[in-house]
Amino acid sequence: MAGDPSNNSPPPISHILELGVYAADLKAAQWFYGQVLGLEQLGQEEGRHVFFRVGDRSVLLVFHPEHTQEGSSLPPHGAQGAGHFALAIPAEALPSWRQRLQSFGIPVEQEVHWPRGGTSLFFRDPAGNLVELVTPGCWGLPSGW
Amino acid sequence: MAGDPSNNSPPPISHILELGVYAADLKAAQWFYGQVLGLEQLGQEEGRHVFFRVGDRSVLLVFHPEHTQEGSSLPPHGAQGAGHFALAIPAEALPSWRQRLQSFGIPVEQEVHWPRGGTSLFFRDPAGNLVELVTPGCWGLPSGW
Repeated sequence: MAGDPSNNSPPPISHILELGVYAADLKAAQWFYGQVLGLEQLGQEEGRHVFFRVGDRSVLLVFHPEHTQEGSSLPPHGAQGAGHFALAIPAEALPSWRQRLQSFGIPVEQEVHWPRGGTSLFFRDPAGNLVELVTPGCWGLPSGW
Repeated sequence: MAGDPSNNSPPPISHILELGVYAADLKAAQWFYGQVLGLEQLGQEEGRHVFFRVGDRSVLLVFHPEHTQEGSSLPPHGAQGAGHFALAIPAEALPSWRQRLQSFGIPVEQEVHWPRGGTSLFFRDPAGNLVELVTPGCWGLPSGW
């Protein structure tokens, strides 16, 4: 493994722009991310993907893994198994999100109260990915997250 | 698939807090995300994970997929194959990031100039995940992203 051959550090990465998730049943994913989690749909291509906006400067990309593994005009990718990611909610939103998941019949697999602060709800999307809703505090970042 | 059984829409998801990535060689991932991409390491557990800060309110979590699939005090997860995600950089940073990847011997698999604006560099982490660095514009969000 090389050290740092460059003396120039580029301006740093600012944030996570796109989060890729894999689901063979895109209609089920569309229902889950659009209706249950309330994300605004940005676009879709039948059998390949459905995209959603997350907050003001990020997107969640749900891909059919077999389609994107074939490659196309873009480099191939695609994973199998349960991915994991966490989406941020305000602290006061926790009870209403707990209730909303229950009202849609989505079981909360685990609820965790973190040592530093913040609470997480863990549950599954229809493809089996482990989704987490988190309130501020668990990472101890200066921003409060 | 159910409709919306709840009349209460909780306060919306604000942003992507955690992005999970899988890599069996955590030392290689540590080099790549810490040294090459310049992310600040937040923590690690030998053989299980290494975590990084991305911007002021998000984190990138690199997990050994076999370890997290076993489960523990948290629900199991873990994917195989090439995941995909994109990290945001300022427009003026593109040439220096191109140069930095080259200086570390990381080949750019594809460079894409998007119709709406913005440019992407696609390349691989040591585990084969498809990583993308993107400048503003391609999604047409009101924020500029």
